[in-house]
Amino acid sequence: MPISEFSLIDRYFAAQQLRRSDVALGIGDDCALLLPPVGQQLVVTLDTLVADVHFFAAADPEGIGHKTLAVNLSDLASMGAIPAWATLALTLPEADEDWLDRFCRGLFALADRYDVQLVGGDTTHGPTTVITLQAHGFVPPGLALRRDGARPGDGIYVTGTPGDAGLALAGAFGGAMIVPEYQAYVRARLERPEPRIAEGMALRGIASAAIDVSDGLARDLGHILERSAVGARLEVDRLPLSPALTASLDRGAAIATALASGDDYELCFTVPLVRTTQLETVAATWDCRCTRIGVITAEPGLRLVRADGSAFHLERLGYDHFG
Amino acid sequence: MPISEFSLIDRYFAAQQLRRSDVALGIGDDCALLLPPVGQQLVVTLDTLVADVHFFAAADPEGIGHKTLAVNLSDLASMGAIPAWATLALTLPEADEDWLDRFCRGLFALADRYDVQLVGGDTTHGPTTVITLQAHGFVPPGLALRRDGARPGDGIYVTGTPGDAGLALAGAFGGAMIVPEYQAYVRARLERPEPRIAEGMALRGIASAAIDVSDGLARDLGHILERSAVGARLEVDRLPLSPALTASLDRGAAIATALASGDDYELCFTVPLVRTTQLETVAATWDCRCTRIGVITAEPGLRLVRADGSAFHLERLGYDHFG
Repeated sequence: MPISEFSLIDRYFAAQQLRRSDVALGIGDDCALLLPPVGQQLVVTLDTLVADVHFFAAADPEGIGHKTLAVNLSDLASMGAIPAWATLALTLPEADEDWLDRFCRGLFALADRYDVQLVGGDTTHGPTTVITLQAHGFVPPGLALRRDGARPGDGIYVTGTPGDAGLALAGAFGGAMIVPEYQAYVRARLERPEPRIAEGMALRGIASAAIDVSDGLARDLGHILERSAVGARLEVDRLPLSPALTASLDRGAAIATALASGDDYELCFTVPLVRTTQLETVAATWDCRCTRIGVITAEPGLRLVRADGSAFHLERLGYDHFG
Repeated sequence: MPISEFSLIDRYFAAQQLRRSDVALGIGDDCALLLPPVGQQLVVTLDTLVADVHFFAAADPEGIGHKTLAVNLSDLASMGAIPAWATLALTLPEADEDWLDRFCRGLFALADRYDVQLVGGDTTHGPTTVITLQAHGFVPPGLALRRDGARPGDGIYVTGTPGDAGLALAGAFGGAMIVPEYQAYVRARLERPEPRIAEGMALRGIASAAIDVSDGLARDLGHILERSAVGARLEVDRLPLSPALTASLDRGAAIATALASGDDYELCFTVPLVRTTQLETVAATWDCRCTRIGVITAEPGLRLVRADGSAFHLERLGYDHFG
């Protein structure tokens, strides 16, 4: 049943409970009025999700709502920022109230967990579903984790177990047989990524560079190398592979999936040797794994090496929208 | 010729000259790092433009680039905000470099005029062009022009000459014959709206409520009435109709177009009687007209009246995406 654009906005997006005192005016006017904290930098990021490109159009709308926010909180996490506000641009082929209701349920459940307030939006009609969310957070000046701070000798780390979401996608497209007992796990890793907010904030003052892994670990690490004008030696046998990945793929394919598949939303970061103990202390309290997988080198380029010192050959670096 | 997503971002969107000292980190990392001015509210707004819904897919890309930013600056203007930063989410069916080059030319020409820096973006592949731009600005606390401040007795004003963009659209769809000498003028009004930034800032401390006219004057004024819990008497014969409009349509159709067609991007605002002289003083310096068109009433509802006191009947209030 089609309902008007204005009813849509009112009914669904203005329904989130107001919870932040730094929102002077939220949804319902031409603009939102916000009160950034004094002495902090404002951190902004946006990501677009297109139906049947970034998610299956027929997927559970609650999962889509979760993921829309999660991928953006992951970007805030990679800068060490604390989340605050979100805005949403939603283009829909039809005003499907059931879809909207479930989408908002997934979105707001994650938003409420991280104290994120939806402060603005625009709902439009179009031939396919396109969702852009912008997340806003804060970080003290000088403490943001950028891509350009890696230096030779820094250790390279990754949170969690990259490759699980890629395995889920490969399973969906018939490119892998996922062991049945792990199907629910890898699907959750694809559809309900958990942004590493606490981990990112804990890395302030410890990590020299960081990025979130959305287009594949090797490719995203490549962005750190490029921006920092350094290279890296990545020891592929140190990669933290999940039991789901090792049970479903042979070792070479498991490593390649961990390196090159997208949608992980883990953090890849570098830490100077002198801060290794400091990192180990904070990482011991995390809910996810934290694994040293290599070292930054002065020599440019990314070298992938096996435990025996031989080179690991990767066919394809990661996801590129127009590649 | 397809080029990679990352080259796209680098080549086109990072090409704008850096000009703002409040951008600590712009395009090229996971997030932008920004420095909001102390003692100001942050004002954010976003608008989505969908191909063949909000613009003709085959239209001049430079005009689309201009309009993408202009419609958002118009929202900032309606709050009395000064613009600062923008982010861009661009979904494209193909990586057409000529289109991108011209789109950016239109976008950056307007951005540079208002000292707006593009600080972030996301470029994705999808079946149709969908553009979401978020604009960020500042306003001193307490001085933002909201929708909820109109009070009975306040005068109702509009900038410029509403209906011109609607006439251009009617012409394009065969619903009106535009007098040839005005065709370029109305097309510019549709494709190159000029955000009323200076006017919005000048209305700080003068207007009691404001909105920008994007979905039709009557409908957008209706939002002020609803949020302010008041009504209005609008004297339709006072509407500032352009020579293009009056030459192309009969008087009834011209009034209806000025009231109900979208895409004007003029400001509609209310001013308490005691500030009328103050308004007249500042408006005398504006590049655009400023016309008193009615009065806010305690009685709810929008009454449209002719000069002889008779009611003006409007078939259709304005644009609704899912109506």
